[in-house]
Amino acid sequence: MATTKQSVSRLYRYRDAIYRLKELGSEKVFSGHLANVVGSNSAQVRKDFSLLNISGNKRGGYIVDDLIDQINTLLGKDKIQNVIIVGAGHIGRALMQYDGFSKEKIHIAAAFDIDPLKYGQEVGVSIFSIDKLDNFVKKNKIKVGVIAVPYFAAQQVVDKMVSLGMKGALNFAPINLKVPESFFVNNVNVRLELEVVNYFAGVQRTKNEKYKS
Amino acid sequence: MATTKQSVSRLYRYRDAIYRLKELGSEKVFSGHLANVVGSNSAQVRKDFSLLNISGNKRGGYIVDDLIDQINTLLGKDKIQNVIIVGAGHIGRALMQYDGFSKEKIHIAAAFDIDPLKYGQEVGVSIFSIDKLDNFVKKNKIKVGVIAVPYFAAQQVVDKMVSLGMKGALNFAPINLKVPESFFVNNVNVRLELEVVNYFAGVQRTKNEKYKS
Repeated sequence: MATTKQSVSRLYRYRDAIYRLKELGSEKVFSGHLANVVGSNSAQVRKDFSLLNISGNKRGGYIVDDLIDQINTLLGKDKIQNVIIVGAGHIGRALMQYDGFSKEKIHIAAAFDIDPLKYGQEVGVSIFSIDKLDNFVKKNKIKVGVIAVPYFAAQQVVDKMVSLGMKGALNFAPINLKVPESFFVNNVNVRLELEVVNYFAGVQRTKNEKYKS
Repeated sequence: MATTKQSVSRLYRYRDAIYRLKELGSEKVFSGHLANVVGSNSAQVRKDFSLLNISGNKRGGYIVDDLIDQINTLLGKDKIQNVIIVGAGHIGRALMQYDGFSKEKIHIAAAFDIDPLKYGQEVGVSIFSIDKLDNFVKKNKIKVGVIAVPYFAAQQVVDKMVSLGMKGALNFAPINLKVPESFFVNNVNVRLELEVVNYFAGVQRTKNEKYKS
């Protein structure tokens, strides 16, 4: 399959939608419905599924349980996915506390920081000195990390991840990281996402004023 | 222009890239270069720009200063954009501390929470009781909010925003919010973004083990 970030992302969103339908008692689902949920169109859904060798038919739809099995196998969701976090500031801690990971079999194996005051435990996740990163990654064969450090430290962190043989990172630092092709970076740029909202909300652009509470 | 979330998002990314080029001394920029930066292609860049009535030519490229002016005017970047945050937990606080907003003329006007222990100041942003939301939004004509509350509270928060005449939200809660068409929601789904990394990193999927530090 010619997988792009977009097609994989859609697959996860189809999956979420199918699980919700199952909870509501649906046994079948149609491409049009999934398209609505994901903000796509029926042709795209059928194309995505056919590329993945998932079969259904236009009139009869797809069988929910079959779809779930096929997508889970494709995505490797039958196994635990171990991830580390570098940076135990607000973003790092928000992720440690996020309770939606475990049911998706994502396991935050540990977090790392340079600040000794942050070492310890946060909701079950151990926060270690960054000096322990090398050993931890090697011993536990960690492939994926979250970069939640300030922008000026992010390139150094990703360089370290690459040198340790890790394969991908979710990056929250507002900087374009330079990595070899074999390493996958997914950027979450919160500022950009907020600007998009501002644009569509057609924000009343007035001069900065004193705020009245 | 038939604006989609994707095209507006690309426009912001072109803009970031053009600013970086300007800092490096470039006076002209070519569609191919911008396409590389944004992960698009030249034809897409030229199409985006022509839809926006931004002119250039294939051989001569675009003049950097002109492009910046035109994009900024389009995006309303000549004015301050005021935003509130609902939820002063880790995500809310990470946003308050994020120093990339002010240079983009995004101003966090205030934050709101239900927990009295959180009321006060955080790096210059006042955190108020949620009871003060109505008045603040009305008096200050706030149009855009960030939803950084737990998932079970998010629908209630967005309903309130809609009822106050707000126009859009950046939502961090892992839930599909129901809103009228006149209200724009942009979801940041951190779990989904992490799953995409896991997929492309081809995570070694082993059984959950004891971690060795």
